[in-house]
Amino acid sequence: MTQTITLWSHDSGPNPWKVAIVLEELALPYETKFVDLHKEVKAKPFTDKNPNGRVPAIDDPNTGITLWESGAIIEYLIDRYDTSNSLTYTSIPEKYYCKQYLHFQSSGQGPYFGQAAWFNKFHPENVQSAKDRYGAEVKRVTMVLDTILKGKEYLVGDKCTYADLSFVTWYQLAPYITGDTKIDFKGDYPHYYAWMERLTARPAVKKVLEDKQKATSG
Amino acid sequence: MTQTITLWSHDSGPNPWKVAIVLEELALPYETKFVDLHKEVKAKPFTDKNPNGRVPAIDDPNTGITLWESGAIIEYLIDRYDTSNSLTYTSIPEKYYCKQYLHFQSSGQGPYFGQAAWFNKFHPENVQSAKDRYGAEVKRVTMVLDTILKGKEYLVGDKCTYADLSFVTWYQLAPYITGDTKIDFKGDYPHYYAWMERLTARPAVKKVLEDKQKATSG
Repeated sequence: MTQTITLWSHDSGPNPWKVAIVLEELALPYETKFVDLHKEVKAKPFTDKNPNGRVPAIDDPNTGITLWESGAIIEYLIDRYDTSNSLTYTSIPEKYYCKQYLHFQSSGQGPYFGQAAWFNKFHPENVQSAKDRYGAEVKRVTMVLDTILKGKEYLVGDKCTYADLSFVTWYQLAPYITGDTKIDFKGDYPHYYAWMERLTARPAVKKVLEDKQKATSG
Repeated sequence: MTQTITLWSHDSGPNPWKVAIVLEELALPYETKFVDLHKEVKAKPFTDKNPNGRVPAIDDPNTGITLWESGAIIEYLIDRYDTSNSLTYTSIPEKYYCKQYLHFQSSGQGPYFGQAAWFNKFHPENVQSAKDRYGAEVKRVTMVLDTILKGKEYLVGDKCTYADLSFVTWYQLAPYITGDTKIDFKGDYPHYYAWMERLTARPAVKKVLEDKQKATSG
């Protein structure tokens, strides 16, 4: 029997919830522990777990591993627990297309959406040119996804994979983080929009987004 | 016999050269084709290869795959061609520690070092608070690596892996991209510094950095 995995998380940050979606999709037993981003995440004992001082991290007693970086955690969970390949492929090129889109998400979506959030919400001065830069990048990434998804339901092959799922949680924050860069996702990026509707209708995704909503408002 | 892999690259951008290091380390036959970042990379026919309009991408005639995202390309090359596991591990947790550091590099080093470069070199106005933000992040990432490398020669286990190698090319640009944020890498981050000296002394890394130097000055 699979022992309970611990997910080190944060109530509103999107990256830990990206991992939660994969844990839910694979029906793995897990418990969530929240780490305070001001007091705990860059201090001991958490930095003994993750010297980079970020969430998510996981502890998996089934293998004894402690692992950080959401992209690497997802690759680990898929390799180890998705034994029926429900969210991945073993064939070439599909197997590596999934990794390609996961890396696109973790290096091309997350950090740039994160900078949009920073300059719209947290930066100590108003820098319009930086807001414009990152607002434009949110649009560009969405345009790229919209182009790829034209005539397709999912990024790779004909089924939902971990690659699709990895994009959900940052997009849930899109209206909040883009400030005065108004984006008509439904009108301008219809293939992207239909895909995101498809992903967020999945029971596992719905549950995680509800859990996040509860955690944020709690 | 392995057929020649095509690496779509750029003379000065660090990410394609990160892939070149792995190609050299594995002694794979490859040819480099440069893509102009202003005229070609975001236009057809290149966007038929990579709709994200970025380099690197590879074409591998041995499997027929075309793949983009440097992190995914490295995972593919290692899985397929590092049959003796010279740059990786098959054991848990080491196998996933390599992926953890690769994702840290591609999501935590590359994009933030890239923003430092942007605000110091290319942004249309001088935004000191943004330069400071990304200069501080270059320092923080280096501090994290320095902490991890204390008492160790490499990030994972006792040998050089693709994870270590993935950090080299962005660090080669560090003096150029950090502007007036002066960083004493040797004095303040000695474990990081010794590791980078070790990595850049490798014949494959030296060859790639020389090739890059030639391409940039050519």
